[in-house]
Amino acid sequence: MAAYRLALMGVGVIAKAQHFPAIAANPAFDLVALASRAPVSYQGLPQFGDLDALLRDGPEFDALVLCTPPQGRADLVRRALAAGKHVLMEKPPTPSVSEALTLAPAAEAAGRVLFATWHSRFNRGVAKAKELLAAETLVRLTVTWKEDVNRWHPGQEWVWHPGGFGVFDPTINAFSILTEIFPDRLTVAAADLDFPANRHTPIAARLTLADARSPKVDATVEVDWMQRGEQTWSIDVVTESGLALTLTHGGTKLWLGGQLVIDESDTEYPEIYTRFKTLLDEKRSEVDGSPLHLVADAFLIGKRHAVAPFDWDAA
Amino acid sequence: MAAYRLALMGVGVIAKAQHFPAIAANPAFDLVALASRAPVSYQGLPQFGDLDALLRDGPEFDALVLCTPPQGRADLVRRALAAGKHVLMEKPPTPSVSEALTLAPAAEAAGRVLFATWHSRFNRGVAKAKELLAAETLVRLTVTWKEDVNRWHPGQEWVWHPGGFGVFDPTINAFSILTEIFPDRLTVAAADLDFPANRHTPIAARLTLADARSPKVDATVEVDWMQRGEQTWSIDVVTESGLALTLTHGGTKLWLGGQLVIDESDTEYPEIYTRFKTLLDEKRSEVDGSPLHLVADAFLIGKRHAVAPFDWDAA
Repeated sequence: MAAYRLALMGVGVIAKAQHFPAIAANPAFDLVALASRAPVSYQGLPQFGDLDALLRDGPEFDALVLCTPPQGRADLVRRALAAGKHVLMEKPPTPSVSEALTLAPAAEAAGRVLFATWHSRFNRGVAKAKELLAAETLVRLTVTWKEDVNRWHPGQEWVWHPGGFGVFDPTINAFSILTEIFPDRLTVAAADLDFPANRHTPIAARLTLADARSPKVDATVEVDWMQRGEQTWSIDVVTESGLALTLTHGGTKLWLGGQLVIDESDTEYPEIYTRFKTLLDEKRSEVDGSPLHLVADAFLIGKRHAVAPFDWDAA
Repeated sequence: MAAYRLALMGVGVIAKAQHFPAIAANPAFDLVALASRAPVSYQGLPQFGDLDALLRDGPEFDALVLCTPPQGRADLVRRALAAGKHVLMEKPPTPSVSEALTLAPAAEAAGRVLFATWHSRFNRGVAKAKELLAAETLVRLTVTWKEDVNRWHPGQEWVWHPGGFGVFDPTINAFSILTEIFPDRLTVAAADLDFPANRHTPIAARLTLADARSPKVDATVEVDWMQRGEQTWSIDVVTESGLALTLTHGGTKLWLGGQLVIDESDTEYPEIYTRFKTLLDEKRSEVDGSPLHLVADAFLIGKRHAVAPFDWDAA
């Protein structure tokens, strides 16, 4: 059986923790090369300093897996497509809506498959929730996404720079779940954004959403990047028919009427590669920008509040 | 010859100044009813207070022309589509990216035609510029869009409210021209936004754009809402082959190498209705959100600066 040959670029935390094991576990894929600015070592694979060197001097491969930071990725995608490669992208695909928009037409023009992944969508609880809620009228939707930036991004100054998203870096995972479960219907109706006096991106936000299918829904999103102790990533839904559904732990646990019905961790990345094989077999791209659009809308229509300066915890 | 029967909702300045004469001049359309909150009178047409009353008590019609403010329009579009009507929308289609995204799928599901118009695109100089620049590599792109908010929006407080766009309300017209001439390639690389200390939206901005097709382009957008005296709406382009092209007066005048080659005012709205007839005949929707995406990106990645408070000119 001929497997798809992959090259992976951007060998950081997410590549090592998730992509390497998911690729190794999937017989449809062979990882044949790495590209990384810093020297790395993985199973004796040949390594190249950048995309040009990989394309020029590396082994033949079918698809490029991009785990580099989102800034500059659109350009890498275009160059890989031009070299005849399919592409899989870590989330978020790009730092801006307009860049995301250029990707699907570029893939179509090149006749290659482009897959912009949203890992949180691949939890099994998300698919089940989507199925259960497809025909439901929402009464209440409550998203609570509270984590500690010190723990997940220690010292990473870029998250506070213009374009760094701030607290919307984790929030976009919640949005990727919402837009999977409720496609083409959720919009940002209002937003309050808290900007630390010494930073350019928000540290907390409170949003009101609207639902095209359920005009009377009470839908709120509360996000905070200074949560100490237990971290919270939950989505609660109550419907007109009385269904009470809760996704917790970022979508890995699904509760129905208070009963835990799905409790599964870490299916995200294996499922991403299963989907990528399907897309490659069917020569079909999947580039959904809708989670990014909700982030952009929060900034576009948000009311800005100055709050206390942010300082990193002492290391 | 059977004409398409139109009902127009939102009888304000733009409806009276542009839509009424453009519809009257086009034999493909008959205006048969109006909907307006305030009493209006036009050619003895029947008038209704809102969309429900129009649909319930009004005459039969084929398409709804929406000239209401963008807030709340998505809901009106969905209700009109559900009633079997085609829809034409004034710009900008919606106040948010996510709302704009719900429109095309809604029209497709309803099997009706939806046309989100961008009037500045319909100047003849824009089509000519698009043709001349299609195969060109850009070296420099300079957009200057400077007007006086006191003159065009006297006392309209909503422009300063969250979601009111501020100076990006006029800037989106420039973006609608840019995205028509250069589809799928321009993105916002950086933005500086000046917020008056007493307002929630920017009064001026400086943007750097990137071009997927011309990575080395020097592309800037400078916009200001406090321009006194002459108002400036111009787009300058210099290409690698030496072409120097300028659109001034919002796209109504086209200059090539300093020579005025197209000088035509007011073809915008007649052309919009010509296009609408084509779309209706071909049962094809046109809903391009890309100008709105550039606005959202400016807010998403923009660096915020506090500037002097804004006060309206004394009336």
